[in-house]
Amino acid sequence: MVNDNLTSVTFFDPVLERIQLVETRMRAISDAHHPDLRAALDHLLTSGGKRIRPAVALLTGEMLGADQEKIITLSAAIELLHTATLVHDDLIDGSFLRRGIPTLNARWTPAATVLTGDYIFACAAKLASETGSVDVMHQFAETLSTIVNGEIKQLFNSRSQDYRLDYMERINAKTASMFVLATSAAALLSPKGDQTLRPVSQYGYGIGMAFQIIDDVLDFTGQQATIGKPVASDLRQGLVTLPTIYYLEEHPDDPDLKIVLTGVNFNNERIDRVIREIQESGAILASVNEAKRFVGQANAALDDLPKSSEKQALVELANYIIDRHR
Amino acid sequence: MVNDNLTSVTFFDPVLERIQLVETRMRAISDAHHPDLRAALDHLLTSGGKRIRPAVALLTGEMLGADQEKIITLSAAIELLHTATLVHDDLIDGSFLRRGIPTLNARWTPAATVLTGDYIFACAAKLASETGSVDVMHQFAETLSTIVNGEIKQLFNSRSQDYRLDYMERINAKTASMFVLATSAAALLSPKGDQTLRPVSQYGYGIGMAFQIIDDVLDFTGQQATIGKPVASDLRQGLVTLPTIYYLEEHPDDPDLKIVLTGVNFNNERIDRVIREIQESGAILASVNEAKRFVGQANAALDDLPKSSEKQALVELANYIIDRHR
Repeated sequence: MVNDNLTSVTFFDPVLERIQLVETRMRAISDAHHPDLRAALDHLLTSGGKRIRPAVALLTGEMLGADQEKIITLSAAIELLHTATLVHDDLIDGSFLRRGIPTLNARWTPAATVLTGDYIFACAAKLASETGSVDVMHQFAETLSTIVNGEIKQLFNSRSQDYRLDYMERINAKTASMFVLATSAAALLSPKGDQTLRPVSQYGYGIGMAFQIIDDVLDFTGQQATIGKPVASDLRQGLVTLPTIYYLEEHPDDPDLKIVLTGVNFNNERIDRVIREIQESGAILASVNEAKRFVGQANAALDDLPKSSEKQALVELANYIIDRHR
Repeated sequence: MVNDNLTSVTFFDPVLERIQLVETRMRAISDAHHPDLRAALDHLLTSGGKRIRPAVALLTGEMLGADQEKIITLSAAIELLHTATLVHDDLIDGSFLRRGIPTLNARWTPAATVLTGDYIFACAAKLASETGSVDVMHQFAETLSTIVNGEIKQLFNSRSQDYRLDYMERINAKTASMFVLATSAAALLSPKGDQTLRPVSQYGYGIGMAFQIIDDVLDFTGQQATIGKPVASDLRQGLVTLPTIYYLEEHPDDPDLKIVLTGVNFNNERIDRVIREIQESGAILASVNEAKRFVGQANAALDDLPKSSEKQALVELANYIIDRHR
């Protein structure tokens, strides 16, 4: 089900009916299974998200004149791929809540969680193959590989001393890659794929980067009740995101932040102080501005494409990503 | 590396060089990664297995005149898919040894194990897409879905009262499906795919079923040192395989077996006695005969295909599956 606060956003209008068809496609994967698995899949697929990736794929496909049926299949495949990575992510992070709702991991054994994720991967791959395009399949597999590689890097803590570079690489792998998939696969399924692949991929990259930056800003500025997890949960787990990076660039010698980053002599008072400092610093606005820059690049990439209501909706969608911050 | 005891088997001769090319393809996935991940992947890919699935795909493809390069890619994809499922399996079962060698799970965190499995899935999917065939991709995704579904069923203990039916369904999902993939995908990549898909799929099904039955027999008859795990480890974990089923059909009232199957009042003395009874009963021979029946069906499915050295090698490979028992 699409969240109510999003159905009122205008860029969803052109694709609202088709998003329901995407939902139906996704739900079909829970048919004819063990009741426990069916319940878990239903829970996962109904509690889930803004369906912003399907909206991007549907709008891009429509803008480029792709076959609607294929784009619906593609959109369901992409959202399932996204869902599968979340299921394994929650297990890996030991997360028990996502968007304030208990994760599969909170209620099931690790074994059941691993297998449910694998099952959703398999369903996503099946749907992707139903688009009938080898190029789409290949891009699909590449994207999964990019996402998993990013997580492995993070797990092994293999980072350079360049926080900003590491961060940009990580959010590209984690988030932007899936938006690039949504736009580029839609282009590959359209009659003018060759000429349009580059601009729409750039658009996907820009909105994906902006989307994750704003998510990371909201982690600092949101209320626990709204974001469904403790404020600054990333930093509390030692994960450095853009607001922290900007703050660090301005205050390279903040002793408490140093301690938080090294994890030695860590205590809650110290981290609470650092979080307050970051919240009240210019780092939040600087991060939002960076997201705006990515959205500007995304929209500019569409400049040379002919005017259409779908193009207009994509521009609005990009702008909405920034508005989420307010 | 191909096991030495297998390189002396004649059916490997026609494909020996190409198996090395398959190995090289598989190894390429560990390039350019974090040293720990690279080491883990190298360990997984070198310690691994008989490469019997690649041999089946290579022989089938060669027999049907498929493009060699594509069949090598397919073979690497199939063996990687198999490897990925093993990595997640070992995590799910909590296995610390496979073929007497420590599993990834024994040395790493569950998180690293999940992600390594996911990464190998992604690499397998990429290679599958490089075959350039949508049909192969689709079959690939279907097979993953079949395997995972089988494991989920097993995990949730959703079984009927019909042990034999449950067992056949389970080993079809777990093992035969991958052999069907190896043969049918090779057919799909060959010029006469349409006419040959059915017989080679039947061949794959037959050898896959026989392969798993003999594995399950070896679990009872092998020495711990040879099979790299305790004798009758399946039954010790409550998993009922064909030798136990035949024994149960002959001795429906064996009180100790009843206790082993229900898991109540379970003790090692009881299970050791049941294992000895099964080992010394006709259940072992009956199981081998069932495997022979599947091999007979497999070879018969190839009857109408023209004579060739590859067809002869496939027949020898099928017969070898039974010989493993001796």
